[in-house]
Amino acid sequence: MASIKFKNVYLNDYKTIIGPMEKESHLKKADIVMNDYYLGEKTFEMAEVKMQKCVFDKVLKDNNLNISNIDLLVGSDLTNQIAISNYNAKEYNIPFLGLYSACAGFVQGLIVSSTYVDSGTFKRVVSVTSSHNLTAERQFRYPVEYGAPRPNTATFTSTVAVATLLSKKVGKIKVESATIGVVVDLGIKDANNLGAAMAPAAASTIASHFNELKRDYNYYDLVLTGDLGCVGKSILEDYLMQVYNIKLKKCLDAGCELYLDSQDTYSGGSGPACLPIVLFNKILLSKKYKKILIVATGALHSPTIINQKGSIPGIAHAISLEVL
Amino acid sequence: MASIKFKNVYLNDYKTIIGPMEKESHLKKADIVMNDYYLGEKTFEMAEVKMQKCVFDKVLKDNNLNISNIDLLVGSDLTNQIAISNYNAKEYNIPFLGLYSACAGFVQGLIVSSTYVDSGTFKRVVSVTSSHNLTAERQFRYPVEYGAPRPNTATFTSTVAVATLLSKKVGKIKVESATIGVVVDLGIKDANNLGAAMAPAAASTIASHFNELKRDYNYYDLVLTGDLGCVGKSILEDYLMQVYNIKLKKCLDAGCELYLDSQDTYSGGSGPACLPIVLFNKILLSKKYKKILIVATGALHSPTIINQKGSIPGIAHAISLEVL
Repeated sequence: MASIKFKNVYLNDYKTIIGPMEKESHLKKADIVMNDYYLGEKTFEMAEVKMQKCVFDKVLKDNNLNISNIDLLVGSDLTNQIAISNYNAKEYNIPFLGLYSACAGFVQGLIVSSTYVDSGTFKRVVSVTSSHNLTAERQFRYPVEYGAPRPNTATFTSTVAVATLLSKKVGKIKVESATIGVVVDLGIKDANNLGAAMAPAAASTIASHFNELKRDYNYYDLVLTGDLGCVGKSILEDYLMQVYNIKLKKCLDAGCELYLDSQDTYSGGSGPACLPIVLFNKILLSKKYKKILIVATGALHSPTIINQKGSIPGIAHAISLEVL
Repeated sequence: MASIKFKNVYLNDYKTIIGPMEKESHLKKADIVMNDYYLGEKTFEMAEVKMQKCVFDKVLKDNNLNISNIDLLVGSDLTNQIAISNYNAKEYNIPFLGLYSACAGFVQGLIVSSTYVDSGTFKRVVSVTSSHNLTAERQFRYPVEYGAPRPNTATFTSTVAVATLLSKKVGKIKVESATIGVVVDLGIKDANNLGAAMAPAAASTIASHFNELKRDYNYYDLVLTGDLGCVGKSILEDYLMQVYNIKLKKCLDAGCELYLDSQDTYSGGSGPACLPIVLFNKILLSKKYKKILIVATGALHSPTIINQKGSIPGIAHAISLEVL
């Protein structure tokens, strides 16, 4: 049983920051907009740290909270040693848990945070996640300066950060249940086709969620995955039907929903904060969906192991939100 | 309040594997002993994956459990993208949470696992952590083949893996309470002096633990830190006295307790599994201690940020064990 039902957890607030590409995208708004990739810092890494700090500080300010009102900070990002989250955490003298599940980090963070809130261990938990195109691309693929051409299966790491505030205080978004994913590896070795590496994990988690919670496939108004990209989304739909005989009522992928076609991002957007940015700054603004299952997918891609001719395992964590 | 009291969590079993250096060390026994650094695999990374698998499988076998009896696997290690833990997890079709806090990973894993057991979310949780000298050294410092000389402040990453089984089933070791650490950075930039980078974080967590739980400094028979090494341990003791006015009854550091002087590891052992291996295969065997506070310290060292002249933040997580 990988699924958890939460009794009493609410997502009280969220704040977002978006980069230069994202402000030209399908997103309808964001709390903070960056005009360049540096935010006044000397390196891309320090810019990403500042992105995390900006959204965390805005959560505090807009909710009239001091740092002492936050009991736990949960952080994740794509950089080695989750250096960005660690560097952000050192600005705040509060308990910190660092997680890593690549682009599934946002939902893994929500699951762990919700567990601590629901169990009554902590009153208020903030979960922060981020990605920055120029820190991620050079770490996972090629030095940015090479300008290496990308194939059509590749996604584009978004430059975004999101902070969420969770507590038992009743609000407009209830965190209802979750499913922790298993690691699935069907042998994909192409770091430019991560959608294919992650789609089977997404299917596995979606199937477990519906099965364990005994829910009809029409239960959710929307299943929002992220970030399979357009190539991965198509694989997911085939895989769900052929392996699990599941046809979802409505399924969108955050990677496909972020950028304009004219932005040439090929298969779409990616990064752990791509899913929440599309959820918060596009999907929820439409006010069309009440019950949403968000399924964050992570390609557990290790350049070291790829160089040793290993494959790319995938994982997907799901969380169900009810918009009241 | 960074501290948590657990109502009903027991560490039911633990299994260990040790490498060639460790079998010549102060350790009195281990469940599995490696004669070389490869374990029959082609790369050091795949050897470390196999080390995790060996200890997990032994926990299952010796407790007459099937994989379906384990509700959650929690994993951490030192490699980028925690690749080792991800690769191990893909061998088991069970929910997986990946964590990263460098050498504090063992205790962070125990804290998250204990939370899931204590809250009743999951019945049985296995937490696995590992390090391998030859995967870690080349990733964090220099290519192993360079044979780069090390200063006296350097520690030696141990080649060990540990799996622990947690549940509410009453056993000989009770997981009593925990303190989640804050990230502390006093500006150390030397990747060969991680003890100095971590000691202030250890002091902060120890002070919070005693203060928040209103415990006398003599409450524990032993405070076991790991892995500050001998240089870091001496800084910790000074720092505890000068900043917090704390003098502990008895304090040992796993990094100082692992290797023989003749093994030339300078400041001592390190790696996230060094602390548990010393705890399980040396300290507990002495049967001298009933109440033990284990304080795992992590140097949140990022080679990328070090190359940008950044510093090394530290973190320490603590958990209190009662040997019944």
